[in-house]
Amino acid sequence: MQAEHINPFLRAVVNAFSTMLECEARRGDIALADTKTQRYPISGVIGLSGKAAGTVVINLSEEVAIKSASTMLMMEITEVNEDVIDAVGELANMIAGQAKAELEEYDLSVSLPNVITGHGHDILFPSDIKQISVPFDTDFGPLNLEVGFETITAGVGV
Amino acid sequence: MQAEHINPFLRAVVNAFSTMLECEARRGDIALADTKTQRYPISGVIGLSGKAAGTVVINLSEEVAIKSASTMLMMEITEVNEDVIDAVGELANMIAGQAKAELEEYDLSVSLPNVITGHGHDILFPSDIKQISVPFDTDFGPLNLEVGFETITAGVGV
Repeated sequence: MQAEHINPFLRAVVNAFSTMLECEARRGDIALADTKTQRYPISGVIGLSGKAAGTVVINLSEEVAIKSASTMLMMEITEVNEDVIDAVGELANMIAGQAKAELEEYDLSVSLPNVITGHGHDILFPSDIKQISVPFDTDFGPLNLEVGFETITAGVGV
Repeated sequence: MQAEHINPFLRAVVNAFSTMLECEARRGDIALADTKTQRYPISGVIGLSGKAAGTVVINLSEEVAIKSASTMLMMEITEVNEDVIDAVGELANMIAGQAKAELEEYDLSVSLPNVITGHGHDILFPSDIKQISVPFDTDFGPLNLEVGFETITAGVGV
């Protein structure tokens, strides 16, 4: 994964929180995700494929997920329910969608968003992919963005 | 998700186990995944996108994952390590790759495989997607295949 590929994802997080949630997201330090433990129990995951292949993970606490869903749906939600799961999937979808638009040279399309739940769940990448993990601090609480991305050489790939 | 879309994935599981692992995989009954709990602690997940969007999940016990990796690598592996994670990702990749070839009218490409670990982890689909879950019994032990797939109407989608 090259540094130039991460920037569209970073901008997409800030923009998605700003436009969908009217919530400021402030970026922390970028790190290679050498410790692969997800810190929070809810992850929105979406795949990107085309002339590159990638995965975007937005890893949230229950609090951030519930506040995001409550804001999106303009109603008070108090527990992780189907609306919250859909909201986290939609957040992942928006982030992937904006990053894809900025990375147009790779002709990317997005898979279905999935939401992983479970305290202690971990999302691992193939060992030859160097994924990048970036913490954000938002007005709703902290979250992590995790991205793995590799360009595909012509003729290679399934 | 239409019934015609599940068959390429079912055949892909049988073929991947047969050709990569010399292991017979016998299909159980197909069910709409109304209970969304993953039964086993390791899941290989890969996204498909193009003129349709989908996710393939192969959900395994530690035993099946370790035996699969040991067979692929022709070495005795006794615990879930990086080799096992890569093997589960490769299994997901092979299943998605074969199904994609059979579903050529959707011009699909595959994202990066990810492997989710964690006892009690759950993989949820958007609430408007009816994913299908199919148990398999193999010579290595039981596993679940879970697939969500939706065709994209022209002009719709991110």
